[in-house]
Amino acid sequence: MSKIKISIAGGSGYAGGELLRLLLFHPNVEIQQVSSERHFGKFVYKIHPNLRKQSTLKFCSLSDLDDCDVLFLCLPHGASISNINVYKNKAKKIIDLSADFRLDSNEAYKKWYKKDHALPQILTDFIYGIPELRREEMKEASFVSSAGCNATATILALYPLYKNKLVQLDKTVVEVKVGSSEGGNKNSEASHHPVRSGCVRSFAPTGHRHVAEMEQELSFGEEARFHFSATSIDMVRGVLATCHVFLKDNLTEKDIWKIYRREYGNEPFIRIVKERDGNYRYPEPKLLAGTNYCDIGFELDRYSNRLVVISAIDNLMKGAAGQAVQAFNIMHGFEETTTLTFPGLHPV
Amino acid sequence: MSKIKISIAGGSGYAGGELLRLLLFHPNVEIQQVSSERHFGKFVYKIHPNLRKQSTLKFCSLSDLDDCDVLFLCLPHGASISNINVYKNKAKKIIDLSADFRLDSNEAYKKWYKKDHALPQILTDFIYGIPELRREEMKEASFVSSAGCNATATILALYPLYKNKLVQLDKTVVEVKVGSSEGGNKNSEASHHPVRSGCVRSFAPTGHRHVAEMEQELSFGEEARFHFSATSIDMVRGVLATCHVFLKDNLTEKDIWKIYRREYGNEPFIRIVKERDGNYRYPEPKLLAGTNYCDIGFELDRYSNRLVVISAIDNLMKGAAGQAVQAFNIMHGFEETTTLTFPGLHPV
Amino acid sequence: MSKIKISIAGGSGYAGGELLRLLLFHPNVEIQQVSSERHFGKFVYKIHPNLRKQSTLKFCSLSDLDDCDVLFLCLPHGASISNINVYKNKAKKIIDLSADFRLDSNEAYKKWYKKDHALPQILTDFIYGIPELRREEMKEASFVSSAGCNATATILALYPLYKNKLVQLDKTVVEVKVGSSEGGNKNSEASHHPVRSGCVRSFAPTGHRHVAEMEQELSFGEEARFHFSATSIDMVRGVLATCHVFLKDNLTEKDIWKIYRREYGNEPFIRIVKERDGNYRYPEPKLLAGTNYCDIGFELDRYSNRLVVISAIDNLMKGAAGQAVQAFNIMHGFEETTTLTFPGLHPV
Amino acid sequence: MSKIKISIAGGSGYAGGELLRLLLFHPNVEIQQVSSERHFGKFVYKIHPNLRKQSTLKFCSLSDLDDCDVLFLCLPHGASISNINVYKNKAKKIIDLSADFRLDSNEAYKKWYKKDHALPQILTDFIYGIPELRREEMKEASFVSSAGCNATATILALYPLYKNKLVQLDKTVVEVKVGSSEGGNKNSEASHHPVRSGCVRSFAPTGHRHVAEMEQELSFGEEARFHFSATSIDMVRGVLATCHVFLKDNLTEKDIWKIYRREYGNEPFIRIVKERDGNYRYPEPKLLAGTNYCDIGFELDRYSNRLVVISAIDNLMKGAAGQAVQAFNIMHGFEETTTLTFPGLHPV
Repeated sequence: MSKIKISIAGGSGYAGGELLRLLLFHPNVEIQQVSSERHFGKFVYKIHPNLRKQSTLKFCSLSDLDDCDVLFLCLPHGASISNINVYKNKAKKIIDLSADFRLDSNEAYKKWYKKDHALPQILTDFIYGIPELRREEMKEASFVSSAGCNATATILALYPLYKNKLVQLDKTVVEVKVGSSEGGNKNSEASHHPVRSGCVRSFAPTGHRHVAEMEQELSFGEEARFHFSATSIDMVRGVLATCHVFLKDNLTEKDIWKIYRREYGNEPFIRIVKERDGNYRYPEPKLLAGTNYCDIGFELDRYSNRLVVISAIDNLMKGAAGQAVQAFNIMHGFEETTTLTFPGLHPV
Repeated sequence: MSKIKISIAGGSGYAGGELLRLLLFHPNVEIQQVSSERHFGKFVYKIHPNLRKQSTLKFCSLSDLDDCDVLFLCLPHGASISNINVYKNKAKKIIDLSADFRLDSNEAYKKWYKKDHALPQILTDFIYGIPELRREEMKEASFVSSAGCNATATILALYPLYKNKLVQLDKTVVEVKVGSSEGGNKNSEASHHPVRSGCVRSFAPTGHRHVAEMEQELSFGEEARFHFSATSIDMVRGVLATCHVFLKDNLTEKDIWKIYRREYGNEPFIRIVKERDGNYRYPEPKLLAGTNYCDIGFELDRYSNRLVVISAIDNLMKGAAGQAVQAFNIMHGFEETTTLTFPGLHPV
Repeated sequence: MSKIKISIAGGSGYAGGELLRLLLFHPNVEIQQVSSERHFGKFVYKIHPNLRKQSTLKFCSLSDLDDCDVLFLCLPHGASISNINVYKNKAKKIIDLSADFRLDSNEAYKKWYKKDHALPQILTDFIYGIPELRREEMKEASFVSSAGCNATATILALYPLYKNKLVQLDKTVVEVKVGSSEGGNKNSEASHHPVRSGCVRSFAPTGHRHVAEMEQELSFGEEARFHFSATSIDMVRGVLATCHVFLKDNLTEKDIWKIYRREYGNEPFIRIVKERDGNYRYPEPKLLAGTNYCDIGFELDRYSNRLVVISAIDNLMKGAAGQAVQAFNIMHGFEETTTLTFPGLHPV
Repeated sequence: MSKIKISIAGGSGYAGGELLRLLLFHPNVEIQQVSSERHFGKFVYKIHPNLRKQSTLKFCSLSDLDDCDVLFLCLPHGASISNINVYKNKAKKIIDLSADFRLDSNEAYKKWYKKDHALPQILTDFIYGIPELRREEMKEASFVSSAGCNATATILALYPLYKNKLVQLDKTVVEVKVGSSEGGNKNSEASHHPVRSGCVRSFAPTGHRHVAEMEQELSFGEEARFHFSATSIDMVRGVLATCHVFLKDNLTEKDIWKIYRREYGNEPFIRIVKERDGNYRYPEPKLLAGTNYCDIGFELDRYSNRLVVISAIDNLMKGAAGQAVQAFNIMHGFEETTTLTFPGLHPV
């Protein structure tokens, strides 16, 4: 079978680097071009030093991108919208890793992004990029919009509960702990090492845009509310979401186990992590660095109907490039785990 | 004026080390003895290497402790109860840094510690050790029981709101991020560097005992509930508490400011940290390492009546030894900030 | 072709975990058994949590090990010597990851290990495990003894220079910076997170045993001396060796390039890293976590004949399990990079 | 006694922040003005958040500086030279924390800074700022030039050996491990957290300018050579220098002890750290964060005449602001430790 020709628009960022790392080892893929205006003409390994000796690709300009089978867009938020028709002319299939087409309606977009979407009429052309929720649609999709990293961790943590209408909809509180790579590869005062190192920084106590995705994917016809806060910690990769949900009914931990197993039992990238002893009783993001897993654990409060659901991902993998490749595999009928089998390191 | 003679029972742990660091520089204190069974006969600086060239004290045995004016107990949880009468015979004033006498009733103790308290009748002899709540009682107190570190961070964050009955009592969710020194100075598999480094570990998603202290101090005649979880991160010192409270009424951020200023405006160790820009807009525990401050910030959710209150402390200082010395100063009528003026470092 | 049956004696440590991670994905290998006395009967993923969902293997006892094709020994230093004949009866080929058979002579062993070797007569049966130096011997070998991690980093850094007799033999100074996983998976006071975190600890200013391996592999008939020191830093995986060698003759950086290219140009796991700009101009161990690479760079001092050679490895990979699998591949005629293709992560 | 009026030119950087932290608590000092062009008009605590509630000072412009008793210059390297006469008109005493006046001769300056010094004739007006070497000169000095941080750590480590002519002069190798605050408070690609975190980066294998200071202070009429390399590690504050010196004669460790005790026995900020056991047997920079100590340890190689001398400092304190205040105290006849008594934290 001939290989799928893919190109990456905006491939010098962290998600672009991960896409390259994964797709260079994908047996059904030929990487045709990778663009970067800033690093035009340089070897990709100059920017992604883990690709030394892996590839002799050089960055081209966005305007030099030829037609290809699949175009991955790793452009800054907002940049995909403005040229989406150009990209559609270059490739029949597009996987967009920005936030531009994640939401289904201009109404939701305006609420969280504080402005109208420039192309609201095509929002529904894009399938929201979490395979565990949208696998069947992805199989037929031409356009996929990757999910936000914090949204992915939270949605996967809570999906079985919300889908089964077990949750009191207005009380859920989610606190995510995130690493510095979420901020991208542009340096700033906030990312200066003496400042960012050792920090435990509340950067979004309220108002985080990824809540829009949670509301969209977890409402199931009702109106789910998410009281969300995000805290930066001294970590490069990784998200840990600590989700406090209040159940409608008395359920046992065994009941919860069954529900998660039913929803996720066959999922290749979801693991229920809940052990009685040991140092890794609950999900731990450092174990997932470089992997596409989402680990999920939970604990029921003895004194209330509160269930704490904990989930961990690598924000650049299951939260970005890994999940995009998983979608790519689904869209092409490839084994879903192709090139996504790295199990992670321990100790690390 | 003659100096107050103090001794420390159990002075080889982290809280004991901090007490020494502070009291060695207290102009009104003479450190008489410090005990440690394990390190009997060694110079204290062998165990607390920051005290090199600061002190020639050696550890004595617990049984060698002479009478003194004030005895600080830094023994393992449970050990203070069993010998409290012995200690009372040695010193008229006792400041206990363990969890043994924090709660006012056997009922609460049993609920959270899963057993009866051995000496419930003396529980009310101990003043709960947060000066901002109990200053007047402390002035007359003979016995003070230091507050838990996570409890201190949470209670100080929320006290103005609860005292003024502004909060919906059953919905508060608190997520604290804690450093490894909370676990004490005994090594374990869980504290092994390759395991503990880089971790984001849910160690108490539910059931943390410090909740008992929050219920006690913040109920104000009603029944406050705290949905609490704790996560260990790669940090040695520090607690950041992210508290989600739901207000009864519509208040503006300006209203909140006024309430906090009214309650805390004259407090020497509380700072309201809420800035429009910069890297330190909200409380940051690393800035507080070695200090007795509790920094508090907040943000009101535009879309709900949720208020996120964020507080930071050094768990060994405001969460243990520093707060104990603050209580000591109050008990003796010394300037409350005596030997507690270290402002913290930046960058760090 | 039928698969090679391998077993691992002592598979609960960090090197054992890495062997499992690698060999589970090796197309020519069947993992038959893994032993651990301490964790007998447990799933291997309970101890190596990155292997969740990767394997249903359980630990057996050392005494239960059946015959196999290749036996990997990951036992504590000293334990391989005492039972080597038992192991030889179980498997025709043995790869020992301990320090027991690294040295060629009892004399060297005694100098550095302060006692006689119990089986000096078989020392030369074992091929020293750095493929770049001993590839031809390995092809025919039955017994390979993996090299020490610090020794591997230093030897690979300096081999081209010593082999070509370019160095003043008594003046070389090597300073390695190492991570905490070098100390193994047993917790101790020294590995307690509040102590080990943030440390820059001189743990072997002199007398490090790995020097014995450097002397053995780099003397080339003369007597090379290595003035070696090791410093622990706040890192889990990784070694950075900073080697100061004094050249006999005036050479240019271009000359040095040529020499390294000649010796290492075809090596699959050696990369010369020396760039004019960027953040990764010299080898950086974090980029190598999980990989089998040894990255080497150098800089010539303008004011002396000093050449600083810098090398980086992952101590658990090129410094232990990865290099052992590389040897395994060579011993069996497999493609040398089989199951060793993970390129590492960035950012990380 | 009336207070000394001091001002700080360029007080928004890390050294300026430390000067403020120290001098705000100095009983004989009144801080008159602090300048910063970039942050003109802001409260100093906006930039130095550890000074919240400590000071209501605001930054003025450099051109607004009034006459004062002592002017501290914390300007970028090069900026002190150009306006030194302006500053001399404002204050009788100047302490310059830049590199501009560290060297005694234009020859040395040109060798290491690659250009002629603009005012070579005044170079000798400035006393080199290490009190342990230049205390007597400082007592009479009007102008002091603070020493480089890496130079301070190295010079203090080796001074007793060089002064007593015990060292083979051309063989000394020094490897320093440094934190990110050495790079100052300007963010860059190299200081971006995802890049700088976890790094072990050889940033100056050769050619570091601080070597000029070592040559100047340690030559004692002969020509000392220093083979120096510097490696950045994941730390904010701190320097650890590992110095390999080769002794001319056979000395025992006891001999070395005596020599260091003789030279440093009365020094308030030097501690010899060399213990038989424990986790802090050798100097450890993290223990020194915020302090003015230089801890020094050593180990003699059994197989050679190599002595490894290890020293640790806080680069912003003994390596910059602390040492400057120490010089200030000496220049004014104050107790040398005034406002420099913070003993450091443990654990940390």
